[in-house]
Amino acid sequence: MTARRYAIIGTGAIGGYYGACLQRGGAEVHFLLRKDFEEVSAQGITVKSVQGDFALPKVYAHASTATMPPVDVVVIALKTTQNHLLPDLLQPILGPDTVILTLQNGFALEDDWQPWAGSRPIFGGLCFVCCNKIGPGTIHHLDYGHVLLGEYRADHQPAGVSSQLQAIAQDFADGGVAVDVTPDLRLARWRKLVWNIPFNGLSVVMNATTNEMIGDPNIRQLAEQLMTEVVTAARQDGERLSPGQNRCLPENLISQMLEHTAQMSPYRTSMKIDFDEGRPLEVEAIFGNPLKAAHQAGVEAPRIEMLYHQLKAINRRIVG
Amino acid sequence: MTARRYAIIGTGAIGGYYGACLQRGGAEVHFLLRKDFEEVSAQGITVKSVQGDFALPKVYAHASTATMPPVDVVVIALKTTQNHLLPDLLQPILGPDTVILTLQNGFALEDDWQPWAGSRPIFGGLCFVCCNKIGPGTIHHLDYGHVLLGEYRADHQPAGVSSQLQAIAQDFADGGVAVDVTPDLRLARWRKLVWNIPFNGLSVVMNATTNEMIGDPNIRQLAEQLMTEVVTAARQDGERLSPGQNRCLPENLISQMLEHTAQMSPYRTSMKIDFDEGRPLEVEAIFGNPLKAAHQAGVEAPRIEMLYHQLKAINRRIVG
Repeated sequence: MTARRYAIIGTGAIGGYYGACLQRGGAEVHFLLRKDFEEVSAQGITVKSVQGDFALPKVYAHASTATMPPVDVVVIALKTTQNHLLPDLLQPILGPDTVILTLQNGFALEDDWQPWAGSRPIFGGLCFVCCNKIGPGTIHHLDYGHVLLGEYRADHQPAGVSSQLQAIAQDFADGGVAVDVTPDLRLARWRKLVWNIPFNGLSVVMNATTNEMIGDPNIRQLAEQLMTEVVTAARQDGERLSPGQNRCLPENLISQMLEHTAQMSPYRTSMKIDFDEGRPLEVEAIFGNPLKAAHQAGVEAPRIEMLYHQLKAINRRIVG
Repeated sequence: MTARRYAIIGTGAIGGYYGACLQRGGAEVHFLLRKDFEEVSAQGITVKSVQGDFALPKVYAHASTATMPPVDVVVIALKTTQNHLLPDLLQPILGPDTVILTLQNGFALEDDWQPWAGSRPIFGGLCFVCCNKIGPGTIHHLDYGHVLLGEYRADHQPAGVSSQLQAIAQDFADGGVAVDVTPDLRLARWRKLVWNIPFNGLSVVMNATTNEMIGDPNIRQLAEQLMTEVVTAARQDGERLSPGQNRCLPENLISQMLEHTAQMSPYRTSMKIDFDEGRPLEVEAIFGNPLKAAHQAGVEAPRIEMLYHQLKAINRRIVG
């Protein structure tokens, strides 16, 4: 078969890294760029990686989706704060069978996409990776890299693992990415939030790195309490959507995550980097949407809500 | 009768202001000073006040309580973070009938004082005042000034209003201070915490003045939620200590305080000033002690607890 054709919508750290991996694996990849368009057109993309550097001297670079062909897979790698741009951005490249794959952080973003996505399949990829863009077309991959892929369903039920999902997973694997698939994307998102809610949120409010947070007994205790609220919300969300199916996170997840965080290298979270760079924070995607789901499931989650209020106020100072 | 003799333990903004008022009213006042001792010995105390400036060219200044005579009333105006010093500081000046009057912020501080206070009466004064020390022996009184006096009881029951309490209130009144007395000091402290917990705490965590907090919709909502937790804790604390006596705060207190805060001049809270000056924060007095009381009364107060954790972590950066 011919290679699948991908469009990378947003060639930042995440889009640049995974797009480069996909191209390395043999896929045809079209990159959407804004301010780096000239450099990347001329010089391609370079990845400096803990797993071995590699360079793609020639890539399909685009300053607009209007110059792209229709693609098999649209990879959304914008910040979620840009999602209002998606309908216009994607209109030129969506064929009737195009798959939409979002690599974005957060929760339930896809609930708003039916108006432009229609009945096209929507997949989500959870990226467990530390990478930064350190220059035009230059990605620094510092650690990890694993991707977990799953299928979104508008009714929020587990979708199972389709052959299409497996084929896309294979493209990532061919590109050297450790990849897994999950039959329950929503639960996987909850699992990632168990870490992201305390550590992304508190890193900004407390102006701290992961080791500073985990090393402070009060912040560690607060992180654990926030994690407990997320696990509770996940369980009640599962019970609301799929009664009696025991759709919930494992008991020992929190202690495992705390232990792991205590042992990993000091790390500036993605939200802290956004904050330090003066970029809008992904408050609704990572905090507002899960909080709504918690409330719908009858879980109060007062600490998540307090963090949400604090981050909204901080974000208001950034975006005005 | 002869004038009562007062010792002011800690001649900062609060001790300096109210000590000067007491002396102005005719009381004999002995001031404990540390680094300002030389200047105040030579030049006395000056108050620049919205209610009219006044100067006391001659005061009894002391570098140690060892040089003070025994006094009728010891006025504690140290930061609560210094309270471990009290037993040694007060030993020279406590007579058998000396009254202890604390003007400190916070809650239930007196519970630890029995070992050195013995059976002496303990009064608390809640100071509703904006004042700063702007130089050695120089106090700037910016706004308000009202004091509410009440008697502490070790069993935490309402103490009523003794003639001794009224006599001390009269000394404040003679000094030009608007003063009231309350039969229920504990409830009065809860009432003050309804404002102090959200606005002192969030001013530090969010790095904001009162008008910035009340002007942000998320912080205003969070402040209201914190206030609700304090009011709930106060009610359940009253129910635990005095069952069936309806010992609780008025229903409309929160909306009144929010409205008042929205209308008052922009204000940097006392905890924010401590933070900006790199001084230890009164976290246990204002947050830890009421939180313990809330938990004892079966109230979870998750937002107060979260604020406590955040402030403990911030304070740890200050005190090391």
